[in-house]
Amino acid sequence: MQNEKDKVDFLIQFGSNFGKIRKMKNLSFRALSQKCDLDYADLNKIEKGKRNITLTTIAELARGLNVHPKELFDFDFTP
Amino acid sequence: MQNEKDKVDFLIQFGSNFGKIRKMKNLSFRALSQKCDLDYADLNKIEKGKRNITLTTIAELARGLNVHPKELFDFDFTP
Repeated sequence: MQNEKDKVDFLIQFGSNFGKIRKMKNLSFRALSQKCDLDYADLNKIEKGKRNITLTTIAELARGLNVHPKELFDFDFTP
Repeated sequence: MQNEKDKVDFLIQFGSNFGKIRKMKNLSFRALSQKCDLDYADLNKIEKGKRNITLTTIAELARGLNVHPKELFDFDFTP
């Protein structure tokens, strides 16, 4: 079971990896928001690890980035 | 952008893949619920694709199953 710190860390890792992919794809928040149903402010908060997004939002993000959702979880994790 | 059907399909695919991993690990819902902070009814609904869970719940599920969260997304997806 995870404590509060584990949860915060997980959101930060997800956000930071999302940022890495976004930059690799040369997409600004604005450009990305035009490719998916998430606005600039949402994307910014997700990247900062300040949003606990749901499965369908993960799918939306993956579509916007044109990646498999798996790639959004491509970071170290100890179960 | 995804329509309602895409969203429902994504939840169903996630649930079905979760079920595959759970069975591969020989874990009943009850056994799994003892390994993580999710109860029997939650797990059952997730497996049926009836729950749009958040990132931290995905992490909790991964810890319970002792897998990387990536494995929970190991299914076909066309961005």
